[in-house]
This record gives sequence, structure tokens and C-alpha cells, in this order.
Amino acid sequence: MARSDGSGSREVPRIVILGGGFGGAYCALALERILDRLDPPATDRLMAGHGMRYRGEVPFDIFLVNSENYLVYQPMLAEVVSGNVGIEDTVGPLRRLLRRSHIYVREVESVDLDAGTVTLAPGIRPRPHVLGFDQLVVAVGSVSDFRGMPGLPEHALRFKTLADAVNLRNHVIHVLEQAAIESDPQLRRELLSFVVAGGGFSGTEVVAELNDFVRRWTRDQATLRDDEPRVVLVHSGERVLDRELTPGLSEYATDLLARRGVEIRLGARLQSATPATAVLADGSRIPTRTLVSTVPSSPNPLIEGVGLTTERGRVVCDAHLGAIGRANVWAVGDCAFVPGPDGAGSPPTAQHAVRQAKVLAENIVRALRAAPLKPYTFGGLGKLGSLGHHRAVAELPGGVHLSGRTAWLLWRTIYWWKLPGFDRKMRVGLSWLSDLIVGGNPVNLNLGRVQGVEQEHFEPGEYVFRQGDRGDGLYMVVRGTAEVRSGVGADETLLATLGPGEFFGEMALLGDGVRNASVCCAEPLDLLFIPRSDFAALLDRLPKMRESIEQVADARRERAEPEAYRGASAGGSEG
Amino acid sequence: MARSDGSGSREVPRIVILGGGFGGAYCALALERILDRLDPPATDRLMAGHGMRYRGEVPFDIFLVNSENYLVYQPMLAEVVSGNVGIEDTVGPLRRLLRRSHIYVREVESVDLDAGTVTLAPGIRPRPHVLGFDQLVVAVGSVSDFRGMPGLPEHALRFKTLADAVNLRNHVIHVLEQAAIESDPQLRRELLSFVVAGGGFSGTEVVAELNDFVRRWTRDQATLRDDEPRVVLVHSGERVLDRELTPGLSEYATDLLARRGVEIRLGARLQSATPATAVLADGSRIPTRTLVSTVPSSPNPLIEGVGLTTERGRVVCDAHLGAIGRANVWAVGDCAFVPGPDGAGSPPTAQHAVRQAKVLAENIVRALRAAPLKPYTFGGLGKLGSLGHHRAVAELPGGVHLSGRTAWLLWRTIYWWKLPGFDRKMRVGLSWLSDLIVGGNPVNLNLGRVQGVEQEHFEPGEYVFRQGDRGDGLYMVVRGTAEVRSGVGADETLLATLGPGEFFGEMALLGDGVRNASVCCAEPLDLLFIPRSDFAALLDRLPKMRESIEQVADARRERAEPEAYRGASAGGSEG
Repeated sequence: MARSDGSGSREVPRIVILGGGFGGAYCALALERILDRLDPPATDRLMAGHGMRYRGEVPFDIFLVNSENYLVYQPMLAEVVSGNVGIEDTVGPLRRLLRRSHIYVREVESVDLDAGTVTLAPGIRPRPHVLGFDQLVVAVGSVSDFRGMPGLPEHALRFKTLADAVNLRNHVIHVLEQAAIESDPQLRRELLSFVVAGGGFSGTEVVAELNDFVRRWTRDQATLRDDEPRVVLVHSGERVLDRELTPGLSEYATDLLARRGVEIRLGARLQSATPATAVLADGSRIPTRTLVSTVPSSPNPLIEGVGLTTERGRVVCDAHLGAIGRANVWAVGDCAFVPGPDGAGSPPTAQHAVRQAKVLAENIVRALRAAPLKPYTFGGLGKLGSLGHHRAVAELPGGVHLSGRTAWLLWRTIYWWKLPGFDRKMRVGLSWLSDLIVGGNPVNLNLGRVQGVEQEHFEPGEYVFRQGDRGDGLYMVVRGTAEVRSGVGADETLLATLGPGEFFGEMALLGDGVRNASVCCAEPLDLLFIPRSDFAALLDRLPKMRESIEQVADARRERAEPEAYRGASAGGSEG
Repeated sequence: MARSDGSGSREVPRIVILGGGFGGAYCALALERILDRLDPPATDRLMAGHGMRYRGEVPFDIFLVNSENYLVYQPMLAEVVSGNVGIEDTVGPLRRLLRRSHIYVREVESVDLDAGTVTLAPGIRPRPHVLGFDQLVVAVGSVSDFRGMPGLPEHALRFKTLADAVNLRNHVIHVLEQAAIESDPQLRRELLSFVVAGGGFSGTEVVAELNDFVRRWTRDQATLRDDEPRVVLVHSGERVLDRELTPGLSEYATDLLARRGVEIRLGARLQSATPATAVLADGSRIPTRTLVSTVPSSPNPLIEGVGLTTERGRVVCDAHLGAIGRANVWAVGDCAFVPGPDGAGSPPTAQHAVRQAKVLAENIVRALRAAPLKPYTFGGLGKLGSLGHHRAVAELPGGVHLSGRTAWLLWRTIYWWKLPGFDRKMRVGLSWLSDLIVGGNPVNLNLGRVQGVEQEHFEPGEYVFRQGDRGDGLYMVVRGTAEVRSGVGADETLLATLGPGEFFGEMALLGDGVRNASVCCAEPLDLLFIPRSDFAALLDRLPKMRESIEQVADARRERAEPEAYRGASAGGSEG
């Protein structure tokens, strides 16, 4: 395949880094610093009295590929939910951080190790872009992986990227706004229940910030009672953060969250989800419209196709961070399996990613010069977790344990200090200052998300829609069976049962827009939902489709009127 | 229709305000202040030594309906583009501003004046909500109206709401990112051209901020030359802002923008748009991937169906801001036609909306008490327009004209002073401070927008896609004819011509994903685009549809192979 890369000189080796998280971005940064030492940037040299501009002796070119143009400052993401930091303050533009690297804001499609090429997904024009490499750094991180958990891909909110954090925030504000004007007690309860699955650092931080935000909101609203909101943390362990911290600190965190009103379900696991329910492994159901899952996280599936030796999806590295069996391929961060002295890999934390990145940058340069490589040795680093509300827990090297306000101050200071760049420090500092003075900013930053064709999952006994609802789209059965029922409450009678490949809800779209039957299910049900607007556009343009849908609708209307209804009021049928 | 409103007491009259822009929000605020005078809030009374809590004597309830939970501070929206103010700083949460009003974050579906009800679109559950009123305030503002301008609804970016501003910013960052790595000179030119239509306050502010942002970005990037970006302002008048300001100031603004590198097309009008072109009324075409249209703006179409007397879509009011012919209906702001002494209506500006809102609030209360109403008299208010880069123009009452840095300082100070609430003043102040110190924050805040079924428009000679492109969806012809061509450049041969109802692009979706023919048009062409993912989901579930599409694909394949190709390489056909 021809290389279509447009920039960078071909006389010097090319280092291509896939991923702009902590591992990838800090590796590029460390490589830039090595370049700076060899060839100081123009301004520095002028100041130092060097007059001659550097010409063509750059020992390597750095290329960084990332799907976003920024580095996400993960530990602060949870604060976006409560609005304590501005949305843009939790990320740093890669171009500001990296002045000497070529930055490609694209998705990676595939990697060909033998050809030495990476194929990037199309940008504006629908043509892929091929980038050649001499040295390749795999730093693609991990992804939320909901496979095998029915309904989670469709109905659980993720918490990994900036978009996830903003979407969660928008969603929470939306349900709170709707709850304030909702008179139906059942729906009101669902709207005011918030479930977070996973009691690791990420889940704990999210539930703490969410709890603070929801309770602050409720306190300000005359139409919501303080005891109405329910915030639940579902965790499989014995205590919150029990895998991350010492028993003492873990207990402190658990107690603190419970005192603040978080309902903690220990030894529990999330099993499936529907639009209005979180279902746990023990069969219990929590009615909720807001389910956040911070588990499980697994290595980026891109790695599977590359042909490297992997260990549970992560690239197996030697002590020098080189991928096993490939001289010019390296891995760093959450997607790398770097065996420590005890044989276990380093934990997938930002601290390790940043430290690995520095060693890796040096090793790549050593490899280019055929110099001996440096091993990555990971020691005991500190652990910090925020618990919201100006409280945190910290486990420092040397057995020092902190909790409460002191730990929180330490947390803030350390993370603030580590923020890349002066401008980011400045912005976040000012943002925190204004937060201390005036509090958060509860604005629903909905950017007019388009609703497309999507899947939905329902558990036994749940309703897809009810008679009298507005028809907002058409459904097709993918798995399971749907029961079409007419009438309300005790008068409900079964009209029909629909299986895979059959559709319902078409009557409300062809007719006056109101559902004239209810649809529920007796077994788990997966549906494909086509929104009204897409459906209308398709019907208008696809005569064959309109025809076949109208045939079904007519048949149902005929069947329904003479017999199935027997004394029911209106002449309606399925949906 | 039954009233389904859940909150508010029914003993007192209900004032329902539709719209939370300047007119609506400030009307609610003025009404709250009247309530405060009658019945001070608890904290004030405690401080003043009043011990007794107020009981049930509230003379009215305020309901405000708005599709967002915030008031947009319109004059600052353009600064979102350059990142000079934080995204959330340009809006104020309505619940913070309005402490005594019932806020409904919903769309308005319809109004029944005789029944005294407003129907709100469904929220989370697909059921509409009916709200009764005794007094109704119509404050629904104006909307971008691209009807009758081919391609504008599909391809022009709007600039009216916060979502519009953030989307424009994201889009601009996206094209700049892609331009930096694009080697094709034609596409690079399109990516680096930015067109704004409309030289009023809004268009001028947008083009000024956009120009600043793009030039600052280019200066920082090694792979972009400073002379590459092209920023064009298309305006039908003789000078920029010639309808808003005196000739002197208007000339100053025109010169300033031109000096900063904005290409100003005067006496020109935008006529149509395609994905890669802005077409002007004189037939000239500007190749661009970024077209912003700030004209035309027309009153909210909701008004048409209400049954009020209108003048070019706006509600005709008497001098007291009451709708003609309806004793309990009022209008305010951009959607109201309030005749002045010369018979013309007040201009649709925030200043008028805010002043009208105060008079209106008082008149509603007077009407409730059967007291005589107050007329709205609009005098000469000042005019202010920002030109980016710390420059502005101002026309003050008494014939005082200012321009340049002084006007800009005045502009900032006045708007800052007018920001509702202390916390907003604080936040925006800090944001401006950090902007002065560290500059903007070029982060593409893409929230994972889902691509759904959408329309596209093409002008004669343009390509929908080219042979070799990646197939990202299926197209259906809505209007016009599409030409399917095989081969590249001089070897291009016409394979087929497709008309309304026919589709193309299916081969790339059923096959290996690469377009094996090009599609262009000889007359204006409107298409319906179905993205790959939606298409795949539908094909899997709708056997009838798959069947008919495969039939067409087979027929095309057969037809293409023996004859149409005659010596062409691969055995492909349409798309």
C-alpha cells in the first residue's frame, strides 16, 4: 500500500505514536525534550546567543495519532459532573503541549507491522490515510467494554472520555429538570434515582460528585423534597476502594459516602439494564433513568488485529517496554502489560503511564543509536482518590495515610501541579477559585444530539410504551418476544405476540401519533428503534418499504376490529 | 383537554411565559420583583426583623417555558468561537436567575387561546403536558429561516443558540486539524476557506472572532502558511453594519475588518450551498467547507398557528404590549411587533426586549388589578458592536460615536455589568482575566454526535463522491438527476443517469466498502443520505428492503460487466 503521508521529512526515522492519553502524549513530550537538547528551539538559541538556525540534523520525526485534539486529564473528569471545574479545563490541547510533533486527529483503522504502516480512518473526504513508521508506540489505552451484559451498551452511561462526562452531566440536569415538573410518583422516583456501578477510583469519584450535585440541586428547588433523591453505588467488593487502598482508608471512604447519603450496595454486581431499570446479579431491580457504569474496562480492541503477543488484550512488553518479538514496536500505559518483579503487570494508572512514557522515549532514542536499553522499574507510588465535598483519601509511599480535608488539599495540589502547561494551571486555578466563591454552574450543554437508529433492551415485565403515549418511532424485534396489549390496568388483554423480524409501533406513525395499544415483554427483549423522522424520510423514498409496512398495518387493523377487541372502545391495534 | 400541570396553586392567577430569552426571562424577573415587594423573601424579612412567614396571599404564579434551562447571553456568543470566554459563561441558568418562577424545560407544541392552555412536547415519557394560563406572554423570539435557499438548511451553519456557537467552534477546529495534514491542494483550500453571510451585528461579530481565531491558529502551526486561510464576509449592503450604524462608524468597521485580512464581498447575496461550496446570487462560487449564515432570521413559526394578528410573522401589539384582540395575551422581544411613534416596530435587539419586559410585567399586574396600563415608549438607545481583537464600535445617545479600543472597553464593561447575577459577573470576569493572560483554549468539544438520515444538496458540476472513496452510506435521489460515471479524469464515461426515487451507493455497502464509480450532477441535486450503520441495521432487519436493494445491485452489476465497462478494469457499477 502506498504511503500517503504529507508531512515530515523522510531522511530521518519516524516515530509514530498511536494514542494521545497520558502514555502517548507524555512519550511524545519526552521525545520532544530529547530533540530540544539536541537542537534547542529557535527562541532559546537566540536568547543563548546562538545565531545559526538548525538545518536538517533532526534525528527523528514524531507523529502522534489521536481521535481527539486534546489530552484528557482523567482524574478531574468527575468534577465536570458537579461543575466544579469548567468543561474545557479538564483537557489540554495536544498542539499546545506538543510543539514539535506532527499531530493527526484521526481514528486508527489498522496497523500493518510488516509493511510498517498505520491506516487512519477518513477525515472529511472519505479516503483513508496511510502513515509509514520506523518505530511504533502503541498507547491506545482501554475502552469501556459492556459485551455480554444485556442492555448496558444501549442504556448505561460510560465514564471514560470528556464527552462521557459532559453527556452524564447533561443527562443528570435533564432528569432533574423533568423531575421538578413530574407529578407521576413512579416516574418521579425513577428520575430521581441515580446508580453508579463500580467502586474503584473512577466510580467512587463519580458517585461522590454526582451525590453532591444532586443534593445541592434538590436543596435549591421548592418542588423537590430533600429526601427524594436516591444515589446508589453498586460494588462487588467488601468496601468501597477495597482493591485500591488499605482497609482503614477504604473503610473511611465507605463511611464518608454513606454519611453523605449514598446508598452503598456491597457484594453486588450489575447484570443488565433497561431504559428504566438497573438489574443486579441477585435479581433485584433498581428503578432508575440514570445508570453509570465505570466497569468493566478492557484494552482497546484495535490491539487484537495487530498481531502482537497479548495478555488479556494488553500488549506483552519486556522490561524495556518493547513489544515481545518486534524490535521496532513499543507499548505504554493501560494497553501495555509490563511485568514487574512479582510477574504481575503495572496497574493501569496515569502515574505509571507517565513514568513509563519517559523511560520509553529514552529507549526509543537509544534503540535508534543502537545503545543499550533502560529497564522500567515500578516502585510504590502514592494513591489518591477524591470523595467529593472537599474530602479525599491518600496513601503515600512510606506508609503515610491521609484522609479528609488534608488529603483533599493534597489531591488538589498534586493534580494541579501535574497539569501540563502554565495556561492550564492558570485556568484551572481560576476556575477552582470561582467555584469556591460562587459554586457550580448547572447548565445543560445539550448540543442538539441527533437521534438515529438505535437498539433498546427490556427486561421481563417492563413496558416498551403504553397505550396513549405519543408515537415517537417504530420498533423491530431483534431477540425475544413482545406482547401487544390493549386496555389499561386490570382491563388489559393480550392482542398479539411478536417475534424476531416483526415490527410494531407503525400505527401511531401512519395514523394520528398516539399509541393505541401497550407493548410489554415476558422475557428479555432486544429491539431496534427507528425514530419518527428517519422512518418518515425512509417511507417517503422507499415505496417497497411503505408498501410492506402498510400491508402489515392493514392486516392488523382488520384482525383487531372484528374479534380481538370484543367490546373494547376504539378500533386500534398494535401500537 | 384536561390540565395536567402538577405544581403551583390554582387560587391565584397564572402567568405563563413562553420563551426564556431576554424578553421572557426578564419579564419573569420583573414579575418576581413585584412579588418580592408584596412579599419579601424569607431571608430579607428575617433580616428586617419581620417574624411572620407569608401565608397564601401571593397574587399570582409565574410559569416559564423554555427549551433550554438557561438564558443565552447572545452578545457574547461570538466569543465562544474564539474561545475568549468559556462556553458556559455565555449562558445563565434560569433557575439561578428566577427563584420564584416554575420553570418548565420543554418545547412548546401548541397554544389554545380559547381554552387557555399551552401544550408542551413530551419530556422523558412520550406524553405531552398541558399547562393552563390566565395571562399568556409570547416571548418565543426568532429562528434562523433558510427556506427557499437550496442547500442552506443542510450545509450552512446557524449562529443563534449556544449549541450553534459550540458546533461552529468544533467544526472550525476540525477543519483546521484536517487541513494541517491534508496534501491535496484543492481540499486544503476548501478546508481553509471560511464564509460568513450577513454583515449585521451578529455576522460582523462572528467573522471578526473567526478571523482572529483562524489566523492565531495558523501562526502557531508549522504546516500551515500564514497566507493560506481565507475568511470572507458576504454582505448585501454598501458597507458592513450600514443598516445599524452611522456611515462613519460603518466605514470604520469595514476598513478594520479588511485590514485584518477579512475579504469583504459587498452588494452580494448568498444563494445556495453544497457540502463544499457557497454559491452567491451573481453565480460566483466560493469553495469552502465552512459556511455560516446569520441571515435571514424570522419570527418563531409557532406563532403562525396560534391565531393572533401578525405582521410578517410577529405578534402585533398595542402600545401596552398586549396582543391585538386578546385581553390576556401579551408579546415581548423579537417576536413582538410593537409600533413606535413613526409606525415602524422596535428593532429586534436585546436592549428593547429587556426594556419591554419591565413595562410588560407591570402591565400584567395592572391588568390583574384592573388598573390603567402603561405604554411602552422606545427612545434612542445606544448601539454597540464588537469587531474582535479588542476593537469595537459604539453609537451612544446624544450623538456620541466611539470606535476602536475605547469602544471595546465600553462594550465589555456594559455587557459585563448587564450580566444577570453576581456569580455570572464573577465567572466571566475571571474568564476574561485568564484570556488576557494565557489566551484561548482550542479544544474540539465534540460530544460524539450521532449521524442520522439527512438531506444533502449539490450544485451542477459537483461530485457526490468519487471512484475510490470509502463508502460511508447509501444515497437516494429526492430531486434532480445524478450521473454515475466510471473512470478518472479524461477517461470518465457516463454509466447511468438516476432520477427521483432511485438510489445509489449500495455497491460499496454490500461489497468491500470502496466506491467503484463516481457520482456527479448536471443540475441541482437533492439527496437523502442513509449512513452505513443505519443502513446495515435496516438491511439486517427488513428482508424486503434487502431483497429489493440486492435486486437492483445485481441488475446493475450484470448490466455493467458485459457492455458498459468495455475495457475498464474492475467489474463495478454504480457506487
